[in-house]
Amino acid sequence: MKLQEIATALDAHLVGDGSLELTRVVHPRDVRAKTDLALAMDKETIACLAESGASAAVLTAGLAVPDGLLSGQIVVSRPRYAMATLTSLFDQPAHADPGIHPTAVLAADAELGDGVSIGPYAVIGPRAHIGAGTVVHAHVTIGAAARVGTQCLIYAGTCIGDRVIIGDRVILQHNVNIGADGFSYVTPEPGSVESAKATGRVETTNLDIRRINSIGTVIIGDDVEIGAGSAVDRGTVSATRIGRNTKIDNLVQVGHNVVIGENCMICGLCGIAGSVEIGDRVVLAGRVGIADHLKVGDDAVIAGGSGVGTNVPAKAVFAGYPAVPRDRAFEQVVNINRLKSLYNDMAALKDRVKALESAQKT
Amino acid sequence: MKLQEIATALDAHLVGDGSLELTRVVHPRDVRAKTDLALAMDKETIACLAESGASAAVLTAGLAVPDGLLSGQIVVSRPRYAMATLTSLFDQPAHADPGIHPTAVLAADAELGDGVSIGPYAVIGPRAHIGAGTVVHAHVTIGAAARVGTQCLIYAGTCIGDRVIIGDRVILQHNVNIGADGFSYVTPEPGSVESAKATGRVETTNLDIRRINSIGTVIIGDDVEIGAGSAVDRGTVSATRIGRNTKIDNLVQVGHNVVIGENCMICGLCGIAGSVEIGDRVVLAGRVGIADHLKVGDDAVIAGGSGVGTNVPAKAVFAGYPAVPRDRAFEQVVNINRLKSLYNDMAALKDRVKALESAQKT
Amino acid sequence: MKLQEIATALDAHLVGDGSLELTRVVHPRDVRAKTDLALAMDKETIACLAESGASAAVLTAGLAVPDGLLSGQIVVSRPRYAMATLTSLFDQPAHADPGIHPTAVLAADAELGDGVSIGPYAVIGPRAHIGAGTVVHAHVTIGAAARVGTQCLIYAGTCIGDRVIIGDRVILQHNVNIGADGFSYVTPEPGSVESAKATGRVETTNLDIRRINSIGTVIIGDDVEIGAGSAVDRGTVSATRIGRNTKIDNLVQVGHNVVIGENCMICGLCGIAGSVEIGDRVVLAGRVGIADHLKVGDDAVIAGGSGVGTNVPAKAVFAGYPAVPRDRAFEQVVNINRLKSLYNDMAALKDRVKALESAQKT
Repeated sequence: MKLQEIATALDAHLVGDGSLELTRVVHPRDVRAKTDLALAMDKETIACLAESGASAAVLTAGLAVPDGLLSGQIVVSRPRYAMATLTSLFDQPAHADPGIHPTAVLAADAELGDGVSIGPYAVIGPRAHIGAGTVVHAHVTIGAAARVGTQCLIYAGTCIGDRVIIGDRVILQHNVNIGADGFSYVTPEPGSVESAKATGRVETTNLDIRRINSIGTVIIGDDVEIGAGSAVDRGTVSATRIGRNTKIDNLVQVGHNVVIGENCMICGLCGIAGSVEIGDRVVLAGRVGIADHLKVGDDAVIAGGSGVGTNVPAKAVFAGYPAVPRDRAFEQVVNINRLKSLYNDMAALKDRVKALESAQKT
Repeated sequence: MKLQEIATALDAHLVGDGSLELTRVVHPRDVRAKTDLALAMDKETIACLAESGASAAVLTAGLAVPDGLLSGQIVVSRPRYAMATLTSLFDQPAHADPGIHPTAVLAADAELGDGVSIGPYAVIGPRAHIGAGTVVHAHVTIGAAARVGTQCLIYAGTCIGDRVIIGDRVILQHNVNIGADGFSYVTPEPGSVESAKATGRVETTNLDIRRINSIGTVIIGDDVEIGAGSAVDRGTVSATRIGRNTKIDNLVQVGHNVVIGENCMICGLCGIAGSVEIGDRVVLAGRVGIADHLKVGDDAVIAGGSGVGTNVPAKAVFAGYPAVPRDRAFEQVVNINRLKSLYNDMAALKDRVKALESAQKT
Repeated sequence: MKLQEIATALDAHLVGDGSLELTRVVHPRDVRAKTDLALAMDKETIACLAESGASAAVLTAGLAVPDGLLSGQIVVSRPRYAMATLTSLFDQPAHADPGIHPTAVLAADAELGDGVSIGPYAVIGPRAHIGAGTVVHAHVTIGAAARVGTQCLIYAGTCIGDRVIIGDRVILQHNVNIGADGFSYVTPEPGSVESAKATGRVETTNLDIRRINSIGTVIIGDDVEIGAGSAVDRGTVSATRIGRNTKIDNLVQVGHNVVIGENCMICGLCGIAGSVEIGDRVVLAGRVGIADHLKVGDDAVIAGGSGVGTNVPAKAVFAGYPAVPRDRAFEQVVNINRLKSLYNDMAALKDRVKALESAQKT
């Protein structure tokens, strides 16, 4: 691809020789050939550029390089956004053979759209439907009556349970679990958790635990992505839902009956307990936990590691354990750090009051 | 199933036409036909009932609906417990063909009980034993000399290591890992962790890390359930044990040599470090961590997100990081929230003392 | 194996009959035969020894047993280190048939070293290379152009993505995910997270989320181990790297572009966000989170459950959420626990000042 074409795709400023032919985008230290386009969009990578031998680079506006160092350069204003285009132009999609591998086990009444790729040892259940252009990698299981949309990418080892519905252009990474049973049990009489919540004490015991079966399903919207090893449990009687274009990272747990809106970003190791409702465009940083039945409003942002035990209003920024509005969380941290001096102040003030009291008595 | 039969199964009060025939239980907003039984056991779902077109519903005592709205209704006193029976009556078990799929790889000396179902591409190792009526889904691996009891459900992608012993009626969801090696290493001389624990400082370094192999196994009791992606490591020389009827959610880590009692409930993303002992009927809410070698007593309840660094007595309710008795944890939160006013009080009091001191001098 | 030979391997003191023949190492309560070597290296297991019927035991220096109880004993000075040797002498490696199982799907141009074992239904992609002596268990996927070194152990269900490079003697437990895509998205204009970080408020919204593809890879050094269900994402344009002899536990998330040094130990459920750099010999206890782009210095130790939001210097011991040096974290906990008395002190002191003020007025 020519440097000029890349600049056009990025809608960015080209300096120098636009006719350079590029075949890879790389960190400056990984430049091996004149056809490598170096990405040097921050100070650290710029510093590597001089010794890289690169002929062409993508740079950030305002971060200059010495004249003559490069034969051609592209200057972008929002480098992170440029990465979306650059990694799309030079994408290296996972290898998948076209067509249906002879070892795939397909139920007689499974329906496959045009141009699907089904990998070795994939298992597609009865009445399942897979949309056109979808790639199913090795060892994937798609359950009975499940529906997968068009142009999806389902990586190796992923399990999609019976009756699950998945939209178009969905990406499920390795070993994703969609449609396992919810974690839902009940004791004949109110049990230890109900007692602990009500009174703070354990006054009953859970001698008998009965299972509530999960007879609902999971519905996943278009353009959703779910990371390796993550799990989305099926609803109890209705559906656990993940809205259009929401992105979920690795090792995330989404409990039964949860409803997540559109365009959310949920980072690694988050745990969303049963029946939580999350609005649109919500961001959960890594390792956030949300207790069951809570609501998180649109556009809320929750900081990494937070433990959410209350509803979160729209556009709120929450942090901490228990999570509170971020300003309060920061104030708490500052106040806790000042405690040592507060204890000293208190001791000194006691002495001064004592001295005043002694003086008064005399 | 007739409404009268459902009421009898629930041991609940029937109002109206007991001869109604029902085929599904649904949320009121999902009612499509006269044969749908609406579940409207809280205020939110009751509110949906009028427009649902439902003919029959399960209601909670004390939450009335307008006369004439329904042809038949069942009134229950503990709705959550009724769900166990209702989802059992209308269960939708995962599809599994009877018998042994021709693609399953069975060791010549593996033993299978009557009526087992073995899915496509399952792999059963030498001397493994699988009890009568157990369902093994696609892509499951059962190791050499492992024993799985009767009437178990082993979902797709689950790995059961060599010599692991699993009781009867156990449910393992997708991609569960039973019997991986424990995380156990040692340095020739005391290493950085031992130094940090003893002195608070790192005074040694871990130049050489040696592996302690896990030559023990895992023993799982009857009626245990383990969620998608969870891992139970094998013991070092003896067994990691999970007691009868204990329920474990998705993405839970159970370390080597851990012993968990009966009837426990362990929610998603909990981490139980090596050699922890957990009693009977213990409840760990989501994302709880328990440090190695600790003991948690019977009937204890640990709140979500807690980090447990001490033993927990029987029947205790713990919360926080580091976890303490819940009342103290709540008091800590309240006290931290009051700090801003405390700092203000301190400043004001200093001024008043200063004024008194000035007055004294004059 | 003779007791004398075991003592020699342990470089430890032998007492009694060195000619005893031993076939298993067991906890004292599991002794079944004269050929069982009891491990009784702490007070708890020593107490079980008398009733165990053991003929031979490994003991810790300074913990005496009654004369005549055992026919032979080995006395070690560092029992945990002895376990590395003992579990190596009596190892029970996972069963694997030699050679290539007929059901394995191997690309025509995949290269296999001498003596490899490839299990049932393993799938090896085009141009993949597997080194001599490596064992690949059932249902493993190895992607196109991936390279796995010699003498590795790859357990069932593990997925290794295209172009991933894995060193020699690496162990990957069940269902490990190497080389899934990084969690990397961007909005055309600065989004809610950028706004929240800059101002504490959400002043923009993430209407359009664009994907940054992961076109880099993962490079894993020699002697690395990775636990069940863990995930290591590929880099954006370069490689996510894990250094030689680093050990990673179950259900750990390693984000894109992360660089981890040598000889680290990373315990279960840790989350390491994108572009973090971790030095050599670093220890992360369980459930630690590290925010993106941070650096953790050599030999640092981070306590369980910590949430790291700043760089961590070499040899530092950090704890807490947000994580701070351990001494400060401990001081914070103590100071918070003393708050109740501080509030009482403040109330009492106010009264005394008020009394002084009243006296002054009169």
